[in-house]
Amino acid sequence: MGTTTLTKDETAKWLKLKDNFLIITHRRPDGDTLGCAGALAQILLESGKTAYILFNPEATPRYAPFVEDYWAPDAYGPENIIAIDTASDGLFPANGEGYKDSVSLCIDHHPSNTYYAERTHIDCSAASCGEIIYDLAIAMAGRVSKKTADRLYVALSTDTGCFAFANTTANTLRVAASLIEAGASHKELNKELFRTRTIGRIKLEGFIFSGLEFYFDGKVAISSITRDIIEKAGAAEDDIDDIASIPGSVQGVLAGITIRELTSENDCKVSVRTGSSINANSVCAHFGGGGHPMAAGFSLDKTMAEVKEALLEVLTGYFPQA
Amino acid sequence: MGTTTLTKDETAKWLKLKDNFLIITHRRPDGDTLGCAGALAQILLESGKTAYILFNPEATPRYAPFVEDYWAPDAYGPENIIAIDTASDGLFPANGEGYKDSVSLCIDHHPSNTYYAERTHIDCSAASCGEIIYDLAIAMAGRVSKKTADRLYVALSTDTGCFAFANTTANTLRVAASLIEAGASHKELNKELFRTRTIGRIKLEGFIFSGLEFYFDGKVAISSITRDIIEKAGAAEDDIDDIASIPGSVQGVLAGITIRELTSENDCKVSVRTGSSINANSVCAHFGGGGHPMAAGFSLDKTMAEVKEALLEVLTGYFPQA
Repeated sequence: MGTTTLTKDETAKWLKLKDNFLIITHRRPDGDTLGCAGALAQILLESGKTAYILFNPEATPRYAPFVEDYWAPDAYGPENIIAIDTASDGLFPANGEGYKDSVSLCIDHHPSNTYYAERTHIDCSAASCGEIIYDLAIAMAGRVSKKTADRLYVALSTDTGCFAFANTTANTLRVAASLIEAGASHKELNKELFRTRTIGRIKLEGFIFSGLEFYFDGKVAISSITRDIIEKAGAAEDDIDDIASIPGSVQGVLAGITIRELTSENDCKVSVRTGSSINANSVCAHFGGGGHPMAAGFSLDKTMAEVKEALLEVLTGYFPQA
Repeated sequence: MGTTTLTKDETAKWLKLKDNFLIITHRRPDGDTLGCAGALAQILLESGKTAYILFNPEATPRYAPFVEDYWAPDAYGPENIIAIDTASDGLFPANGEGYKDSVSLCIDHHPSNTYYAERTHIDCSAASCGEIIYDLAIAMAGRVSKKTADRLYVALSTDTGCFAFANTTANTLRVAASLIEAGASHKELNKELFRTRTIGRIKLEGFIFSGLEFYFDGKVAISSITRDIIEKAGAAEDDIDDIASIPGSVQGVLAGITIRELTSENDCKVSVRTGSSINANSVCAHFGGGGHPMAAGFSLDKTMAEVKEALLEVLTGYFPQA
């Protein structure tokens, strides 16, 4: 199926022309996909449209408050499907499978986007999808409401590690400034999202730091998070948010890798975080995954030991002298 | 001694009129005082002036690169003394004692400023002194150089916990955006300042988390950092930066307190970090200290146990029901 790429103004025009929207977020949803979905639903509602978000069964308590008012009722019959921050339709939640062939518009910032939608509005220079939605809101209405601003602040701040990750740009900071002026509760949101640790999180960090393994002369750090560790720490899913950044935070590490055991010992999710010298997207492409140059991931139906071995073999290509 | 408060434009005019400056930073210097001092020296040099920074013997390796090019030679005879980010002359480093009665200008953002200088340019709404220096640079030259931008980015980002603390404003983010556009190496600086942990830091965090004590039904968390803990962790002074934010990061804590043993067991430094419900500045005022409403501190020549007891007594007033 061919796709048409739309500019910001064309996208805003299309949104104003259409109605009865259903917004789809991605699996294992983060603050960007959920914050943007909530913001877009709110923007559309404020412009007099009917808009809902497809229930995402994996939405965690941390982000649920920003989307739960917009969950679509079972009987809802949408006319226009919009996928947000979702690079391929393979990332749709299970209850979104039926919409795969009829996505009217995809709004995204991932270079790995597969152009599966009828229309695609993409900006890979945006640190978060939230910046794209902000520009659309301004193009549509000239302003954002406090409700929209809160949701977009969640999107921007979580996708940039509160503006500390390398994807942060001058535009990210300027949009965040405008969101604060539009009434976003940045103090409360920052406190909750970035400056609050549960006891479960504290214990989990302890396990991670004490269990880090180093390879290639300290340039690669691997954290292996078993189901057992999660249980012992008493960590909830929200406590596990952003742990992928920990191995890469150790001085001298060029590639930080987190291998997490999911539902069984043969079901691993891998996150790769790198500095500018190694392309995380390329590393993950070896395993059918992808993402951004400095932050990517993949899933593998293998044990943690097997995953680690396979990864180290691929990484040998990056550290030939070691 | 009386002081004249100057507006931004008056301060810029005074700086353009005068020459042969010496810039003084505060004791236990942080990224704001050092980043601003480096930036101001650079701005003055670029406008054709002679400007140096008084050597600060406590400047750590983390921040030294941003000031060391500007340390004043021993023989330097300045005409105009400028104190930066320094609320009282009691905070001058030992080698600055001789300048206490002849400070021409103080540039600051602390509400606790004692107006000790001949002229004071103060803006308590600024999250960091860096924002004030940025505005002065624009008023003086209409632009900032990359060297200045790097130093001001250090000031802004370190004083706001990389834009996550409650003092962050829309203006902070907008100035940071302008600094990035002026060439600040924000990716490298963020990585180094906020996303790199030494092994010493990792061990220190482990000690802190495992040693946290909770009072008043979990609303107050106290971290006691002995010299022994620092030694066991192998933590350098830079590793200790910003640990004051840790106790307050635990879920449900309204006041996070860090008591650190300095040179002897009768020499303690206390940092208090609070949410909006408790005024940290007022708490510290009981002990002759001060700072901001949500971040303040004091020093006491008592043992850690004595300090803790005295603090808990003061805090009882804030939690009468407990």
